[in-house]
Amino acid sequence: MPSHPEFRVIGVIGMPEIKEGDDLADLILKASEAQGTPIEDRDIVVVTQKIVSKTEGALVDLKTVEPSELAKTMAADWDKDPRHVEVVLKESRRIVRMDHGVLITETKHGFICANSGVDASNVPGEDMLCLLPKDPDASAERIREAIRQRTGHSVAVIISDTFGRPWRDGTTDIAIGTAGMDPLKDYRGEADQFGRTLRVSVAAVADEVTGAAELVTGKNQEIPVTLVRGFQYEESAEGSKTLIRGASLDMFR
Amino acid sequence: MPSHPEFRVIGVIGMPEIKEGDDLADLILKASEAQGTPIEDRDIVVVTQKIVSKTEGALVDLKTVEPSELAKTMAADWDKDPRHVEVVLKESRRIVRMDHGVLITETKHGFICANSGVDASNVPGEDMLCLLPKDPDASAERIREAIRQRTGHSVAVIISDTFGRPWRDGTTDIAIGTAGMDPLKDYRGEADQFGRTLRVSVAAVADEVTGAAELVTGKNQEIPVTLVRGFQYEESAEGSKTLIRGASLDMFR
Repeated sequence: MPSHPEFRVIGVIGMPEIKEGDDLADLILKASEAQGTPIEDRDIVVVTQKIVSKTEGALVDLKTVEPSELAKTMAADWDKDPRHVEVVLKESRRIVRMDHGVLITETKHGFICANSGVDASNVPGEDMLCLLPKDPDASAERIREAIRQRTGHSVAVIISDTFGRPWRDGTTDIAIGTAGMDPLKDYRGEADQFGRTLRVSVAAVADEVTGAAELVTGKNQEIPVTLVRGFQYEESAEGSKTLIRGASLDMFR
Repeated sequence: MPSHPEFRVIGVIGMPEIKEGDDLADLILKASEAQGTPIEDRDIVVVTQKIVSKTEGALVDLKTVEPSELAKTMAADWDKDPRHVEVVLKESRRIVRMDHGVLITETKHGFICANSGVDASNVPGEDMLCLLPKDPDASAERIREAIRQRTGHSVAVIISDTFGRPWRDGTTDIAIGTAGMDPLKDYRGEADQFGRTLRVSVAAVADEVTGAAELVTGKNQEIPVTLVRGFQYEESAEGSKTLIRGASLDMFR
């Protein structure tokens, strides 16, 4: 009898407050071990963007920001801090929508999200903002490689962030960076149960894994690391760029 | 020492091919039991739309469909079956986008998705199409109530479907119907780790649970039922309507 597929989603507690220059892989390995779930071969390690950005020093002190005229005008209309708006504009490459006091931008990475991913929550200091990592795939690869060197285990790493969506309320966590796994699973060419070839079916498995991790992470960031154990992913060295739809195929630019 | 949060995602194998009138709850209970993972109190039972629609007879035989002039024109432009296009139009209440041979519609339920959720895969018969259930929350509630009556266990039930997304490639499975759980988790008013109140943070946990289930379901539908065990959801009798963003707040109509 074939056995059923099953995987586990394991929140990692006891991570310390993260500072610039911290050795994330070391902290993740220690915290995972301390709670009795040491990292295993083929785990997916999901790490929230916030602690990656903090390690990399991707923080901005608003006291150092000089707002542009546009930022001042927008901030006045929306009752926001003009320096905060300036940081959002600086992190963007394109304004997708401005309405309801919400600024949807395309970031320099190509992500389309609210406020260019700039965030003030769970950051120490009244005037500090957290930016997205400059190259989240590279961040993921560094953590993956450090875990491999110290344990010999081959894992996949996902950097997660919380994005809103058109049409549906509530955010979901998605993968802004990946290492070691194919973020897509391509079912095209496989037969359905009646032998017909499936036409369009490519699942964003990295985003689904990341959403699963959010269910133990929550939003107060006390659990910024999650292990997903037992999901059969395809190994890949390609990173997460295939998750971003090309402009020519995007009907909601 | 506090213990870490953890949940399991368990695919249910051995479900038979589903026909109209089948007792889904009974089949789910038997298959779960047969593989050694009988349903427990507070499990979330994720059921794919396809088998729910089949049970409810939500199938259309193309031989009975008379295409409209619009359907004929669109089908000719896109090299599709005009009767198939007609069914998609009939299931819609609004055309959101028509481009690249893709028809994005708002269904009568309020979902915005490709082809009104009408699908030909994993359906027996060359000319048969599968529609979404008429009232997926009610479908979920029926399964939930039948499981409660037969086992005494209080579970949550999610009806899942596979939707595309703007801006990102790859589909994710989301919740088109829920029973027994709050599909959103509201973090607003909670403090972040530095004691500041979180402003906008409502997670679509039902969609994240459903995406997790997809990771064991795959697309050939041999595993149309998944148990999510150990995730601490909030009970609710409200269904899934809160997952659909109101038109007045939607920037991507």
